[in-house]
Amino acid sequence: MDIHISGFIVQLRSLDDHSPLPGVTLGDIGGKFGSGAYNSMDNGVLRFDHVRIPRDQMLMRLSQVTREGKYVHSDVPKQLLYGTMVYVRQTIVADASKALSRAVCIAVRYSAIRKQFGSQDGGPETQVLNYKTQQSRLFPLLASAYAYRFVGQWLKWLYTDVNQKLEAKDYSTLPEAHACTAGLKSVTTSATADAIEECRKLCGGHGYLNSSGLPELFAVYVPACTYEGDNVVLLLQVARFLMKTVSQVAAGKQPVGTIAYMGNIQHLMQCKSAVNTAEDWLNPAAIKEVFEARALRMAVNCAQNISKAPSQEEGFSELSPDLLEAAVAHVQLIIVTKFIEKLQEDIPGPGVKEQLQKLCSIYALHLLHKHLGDFLSTGCVTARQGALANELLGKLYAQVRPNAVALVDAFDYTDHYLGSVLGRYDGDVYPALYEEAWKDPLNETVVPDGYQEHLRPLLKQQLKLSRL
Amino acid sequence: MDIHISGFIVQLRSLDDHSPLPGVTLGDIGGKFGSGAYNSMDNGVLRFDHVRIPRDQMLMRLSQVTREGKYVHSDVPKQLLYGTMVYVRQTIVADASKALSRAVCIAVRYSAIRKQFGSQDGGPETQVLNYKTQQSRLFPLLASAYAYRFVGQWLKWLYTDVNQKLEAKDYSTLPEAHACTAGLKSVTTSATADAIEECRKLCGGHGYLNSSGLPELFAVYVPACTYEGDNVVLLLQVARFLMKTVSQVAAGKQPVGTIAYMGNIQHLMQCKSAVNTAEDWLNPAAIKEVFEARALRMAVNCAQNISKAPSQEEGFSELSPDLLEAAVAHVQLIIVTKFIEKLQEDIPGPGVKEQLQKLCSIYALHLLHKHLGDFLSTGCVTARQGALANELLGKLYAQVRPNAVALVDAFDYTDHYLGSVLGRYDGDVYPALYEEAWKDPLNETVVPDGYQEHLRPLLKQQLKLSRL
Repeated sequence: MDIHISGFIVQLRSLDDHSPLPGVTLGDIGGKFGSGAYNSMDNGVLRFDHVRIPRDQMLMRLSQVTREGKYVHSDVPKQLLYGTMVYVRQTIVADASKALSRAVCIAVRYSAIRKQFGSQDGGPETQVLNYKTQQSRLFPLLASAYAYRFVGQWLKWLYTDVNQKLEAKDYSTLPEAHACTAGLKSVTTSATADAIEECRKLCGGHGYLNSSGLPELFAVYVPACTYEGDNVVLLLQVARFLMKTVSQVAAGKQPVGTIAYMGNIQHLMQCKSAVNTAEDWLNPAAIKEVFEARALRMAVNCAQNISKAPSQEEGFSELSPDLLEAAVAHVQLIIVTKFIEKLQEDIPGPGVKEQLQKLCSIYALHLLHKHLGDFLSTGCVTARQGALANELLGKLYAQVRPNAVALVDAFDYTDHYLGSVLGRYDGDVYPALYEEAWKDPLNETVVPDGYQEHLRPLLKQQLKLSRL
Repeated sequence: MDIHISGFIVQLRSLDDHSPLPGVTLGDIGGKFGSGAYNSMDNGVLRFDHVRIPRDQMLMRLSQVTREGKYVHSDVPKQLLYGTMVYVRQTIVADASKALSRAVCIAVRYSAIRKQFGSQDGGPETQVLNYKTQQSRLFPLLASAYAYRFVGQWLKWLYTDVNQKLEAKDYSTLPEAHACTAGLKSVTTSATADAIEECRKLCGGHGYLNSSGLPELFAVYVPACTYEGDNVVLLLQVARFLMKTVSQVAAGKQPVGTIAYMGNIQHLMQCKSAVNTAEDWLNPAAIKEVFEARALRMAVNCAQNISKAPSQEEGFSELSPDLLEAAVAHVQLIIVTKFIEKLQEDIPGPGVKEQLQKLCSIYALHLLHKHLGDFLSTGCVTARQGALANELLGKLYAQVRPNAVALVDAFDYTDHYLGSVLGRYDGDVYPALYEEAWKDPLNETVVPDGYQEHLRPLLKQQLKLSRL
């Protein structure tokens, strides 16, 4: 017997009274993370017992079943199926930017309102947005929100491009497009989920309130790390593609698209960054070179270590933790590159490009700082150059600070959409927090439910005991 | 007017009918993260309007108000107040270990039950616990659960020791004990919150179900990052203590307790790790040396950069992101050291110490890998030594794998306490998941509520339209 996966449309419930049809057992799968938004999703339990599906309810665009009951394999290349995947993952990357910019908008606005400490002489306290520690956690996330927006726009273009080529039966760029979207889905959703939580923590105790909007944003967003391809599994697919590309490059083939930099292997394997002052890191070419060198060297390093294993598959499995890191390095390079390319376009509005350039530098250099071990151990950056990058980051935070609120206002989210008392456009947070508190069901009565039945007998009894 | 913070006990509600007393407005603060556990906490709104508090309701152990209304400052040293802080934070560290080991127990057990992919030839699929990527994410968390347990035990001893010294009016070790507990509270709670989420993701889509026990564990645990001292603020206190110690060491003073290593400044500032093979990293002395060198060099580096600033305070503020990292390095050293010291004790049970030694190496080396940038840029470790550490980690994961389930069983949690269908001791996960699903309120009726009112009119109307 031949086993395939095929799609069917099956009627589950009666159109008269909505009861399940004979042989169909179905129900909801159970409560999920968060205050409720995901509980209305139709993740369910479904079982069939002797249910016959008529032939014409099979999705037969590709494989088919004949009237005689014969399964006919599609002669359409498998690759065509990837087109839809590219589409779905492209929308997920766009959504990552949306969710992240929502969280960042709330955290930046509230950090400009909230004041704490910082005055020894009785003067007003300091806006928490002025603290370097707050900036160093928040501004890289602001930069990431913009970075994901731009890479999302580019992915939309890529999908169109892939589709046009598919229609012309040109499948040559499909593996690269597939690896690229899989990797971007993985990296942007993982980082966004973490970032929403970080934004929540950056709002202090008030971020823990449902009325901050952040807890539910996290609970609704974080499944993106698991659905449409678990993020670790997707990175391993990217890694597999990278290993293939390394061996093709070694065989003299010229890679295309986001992987084209690997063709520059001679230079990238031995180059050393020429950065000499902190400001040298403002040069996009200097950034691009080290991100390319890091990604390529990590991939080549993995390929060399795999080749020492008894078999290719054993080597791949043994080195999979390293391969994940190599895949992340490759994907981060793509995001940095697309941000840089975006800034080579015309961008209207006085000073806008300048602000975005600062965010681009922050995005790239915070990654360089976070993954400094990669850059140092692959030898493309020295410890001194790493310290210079860090020094520049501090300066860039100070430069972004005056425009931080404008940079989140630019997302143009309404208060209704943000759904956060902390992230209000008018900044009138505290009266709103107070008002929101009174809406708590526990506040419907002045004396809480249960006092008469449980608390009063307990209190009265204790009083009696203490009188003994 | 002199302003102080003092504690009072104030009656809020009538003992007769529980209604708020005159002048008191109070209510719940609003819904919070999670399915509900935190909604029953008494975080509330409280306002007083002309409420007089009798003098004897002030907590007057230290400062006092005389019958004549005069505020008398306490002559008890301020430091005494820190004793309670040390106590509270010590319990928080112990709780971190408990919460983390609960999450790890669920994830390890489920990873041994869940199978996926890995069979090309029709054989059984692979237990996900056998995947190197799963091991490299999960086993460092297992090791952390043990590490936090041991450092928690030691902190309990420290609290007793501090208290005895306080009673003997010896305040000399208090600043060190304070910095140490503040830092441990910060590092262990941040890492635990992240780790619970990671364990949830390691359970795939099922980790998202409330019945996995993980969503609520996270929502109930994560406030620990904010309460009893926000984790970033606490690290800055540690950093301030480190900067003070560096200058005292420079002045020839010998530091004590967890900071004693800083006295060894001559050696630690210039030593280079002698590690030459992967197995050399099994030597606790080799580990301790590089963690000490890294922590000290990061602190000294910060101190030097601060001294270049126009003022001490400006420098501290400007460099605060770097100071956070130096503080984390110091605290990680403490945890690694206490793990190593624990293993120098007698540990009963055949083979138990051996297993714990592997976990200790995993704990230290995964930190070395994660913060490789620190170790490389401070120059105590070379890129090759870093790669050897990584190589050894892979071998250690393979050695821990056969005992992984036993190592979480050793926490001795009942199924009732774990509250997770995925983490059941008997491993009978799937029938339990199925049974749990049917308890969903949505499954109380076969046809969901609202069908008659909303769905049926919609469906019937659409049918009519399609017949036009």
